[in-house]
Amino acid sequence: MEEPRTSPLLSQIGEREAIRRLAARLGTRADVRIGIGDDCAVTEAAGSPFDWLLTSDPVIEGVHFLSDAPPGGIGHKAAGRVLSDIAACGGEPLWLLFNVVAPPDCPVRILEAAYDGAARLCSRHGAAIVGGDLARGERLEWHAFGVGRVPRGRAVLRSGARPGDTIYVTGRLGGSGFRGRHLDFEPRVREGRWLGDGGWATAMLDVSDGLAADLRRLLECSGVGARIRLPDIPVSDDARALAGNEEDARRHALCDGEDFELLFTVRPDRRADFERNWRANFELDCTAIGEMTEKKERLLAIRADGGAIPCEETGYEHFRHRTAHDRR
Amino acid sequence: MEEPRTSPLLSQIGEREAIRRLAARLGTRADVRIGIGDDCAVTEAAGSPFDWLLTSDPVIEGVHFLSDAPPGGIGHKAAGRVLSDIAACGGEPLWLLFNVVAPPDCPVRILEAAYDGAARLCSRHGAAIVGGDLARGERLEWHAFGVGRVPRGRAVLRSGARPGDTIYVTGRLGGSGFRGRHLDFEPRVREGRWLGDGGWATAMLDVSDGLAADLRRLLECSGVGARIRLPDIPVSDDARALAGNEEDARRHALCDGEDFELLFTVRPDRRADFERNWRANFELDCTAIGEMTEKKERLLAIRADGGAIPCEETGYEHFRHRTAHDRR
Repeated sequence: MEEPRTSPLLSQIGEREAIRRLAARLGTRADVRIGIGDDCAVTEAAGSPFDWLLTSDPVIEGVHFLSDAPPGGIGHKAAGRVLSDIAACGGEPLWLLFNVVAPPDCPVRILEAAYDGAARLCSRHGAAIVGGDLARGERLEWHAFGVGRVPRGRAVLRSGARPGDTIYVTGRLGGSGFRGRHLDFEPRVREGRWLGDGGWATAMLDVSDGLAADLRRLLECSGVGARIRLPDIPVSDDARALAGNEEDARRHALCDGEDFELLFTVRPDRRADFERNWRANFELDCTAIGEMTEKKERLLAIRADGGAIPCEETGYEHFRHRTAHDRR
Repeated sequence: MEEPRTSPLLSQIGEREAIRRLAARLGTRADVRIGIGDDCAVTEAAGSPFDWLLTSDPVIEGVHFLSDAPPGGIGHKAAGRVLSDIAACGGEPLWLLFNVVAPPDCPVRILEAAYDGAARLCSRHGAAIVGGDLARGERLEWHAFGVGRVPRGRAVLRSGARPGDTIYVTGRLGGSGFRGRHLDFEPRVREGRWLGDGGWATAMLDVSDGLAADLRRLLECSGVGARIRLPDIPVSDDARALAGNEEDARRHALCDGEDFELLFTVRPDRRADFERNWRANFELDCTAIGEMTEKKERLLAIRADGGAIPCEETGYEHFRHRTAHDRR
């Protein structure tokens, strides 16, 4: 057996490789459709017309928020990350639990305000906070766990995209840390359910680690490549305000994390029909930014002048990079 | 609105009062049978013959284990706490998720060994680890979330005990921190399911904060009092090895936490039948330690000489007490 002292460190192999190694050690059950590796785990419930979506996310002081963050935003983000994961599978969020870690000298009012932020967001999306735990620690941490459901066999996965599918993203991207949008975003629950129920999305995830990084995950899971048109990426006002010029703003839109918008693919023959129906249902932007290709192309970003840039190493990863907040 | 600076601190009001305040702020859904306040939340699974049991527990370095703890024991404890909560509701554990927090210089081998410990325990009880998250932090933390199920309407709650019910506890209590039993306990999953399926237990919880503290919770939730006979409390070998004398050992059995045994009540007219059936099914000790009484008696501990001691302030609570491990 490998001794701890000869083991690589987390910082050497990074978050994704560590998760891959850990996932390889786990058993399963016959009722687990999708385990580790998608936005949610998907499980069957005997005798029920639904599959169940299970997901968990941490929101940690110094990593996901700074110590001067508004408390309501902390709870909002903790609940919102979980709601966004469920939305990204096309699901309906139902129940949330929070493990809260707090220092003994934390004013109770801070926790109450954070819970209010979480409860308000959950209530808006029809979900309820049903339990959790409170423990002592050095920093404030919220570990959120969520359960959602989706009609049996209808969860939208990361693995369903095919060459030729059009790539869409909701909203506008980049700079979510600049003016606190990462603490006040709207998880795309209604849009995600509509995309799933209508069978529009062939694959979907939410943009948490940055468009380029998350799109690469979609490619890995689906076994395809992609071309995205840089000038078509929807750039947020935050990214523009933060950036020195348009190219810099586009880099923020491509690489920043925590937009919590939906990134998904639609079959090419349904594209026109999809866009018409989207506009009939939502005011939210939904932008076609490229197409899926054969796997060998990997991820190419096409400039305005037609030049193609391989787009391999961008986006946030725990342990290997410092956080967006550290970088400010 | 109360300003943060005038708010009481967590250390001033304690864990239970903080949870009470936070729970009062939350909304609910029609399909939530039991929210915050029991071992698990209980929700209806639409269209299925089951209710869901949802629970979450933290296992934190410096609070729930020391930095020299065997890694396998950390994972075992994280999974075991959740399995024990599900057992305490009479449920069948199904799926677990872990949010893991680790320092960047943590050897991957430590996480692998911890996952192995968790996976081994889950597998023994038929449950699967299906997801989670890995984030950066100062200390090692495992936040475990679990989903179990129980036939609809059959979850065993803390609120079902009535005056006259006999109080039982499984196993032997006390000193779980002395030789590492708190990292290597067996959650009473088979016993809990049997107690629930057979309708034997009128109320149940698992002993996590100490027999006296947890029994008081059962009394509060059921609106009853209790008398327990001190000489009948089953004392573990660990408690005896740790204690100077029998009285001290019994104090450990009454007040120490993290035994993860089941504490439950049985109707008096079923007592003989229950004890015969228990012995036919399990080798594990199951000891009658007292009876439920009218609420006005609260909790009385009866000494060998017949004297009655009111038993109000014992047992572990986060924020107000230092941990068992701190005290060593």
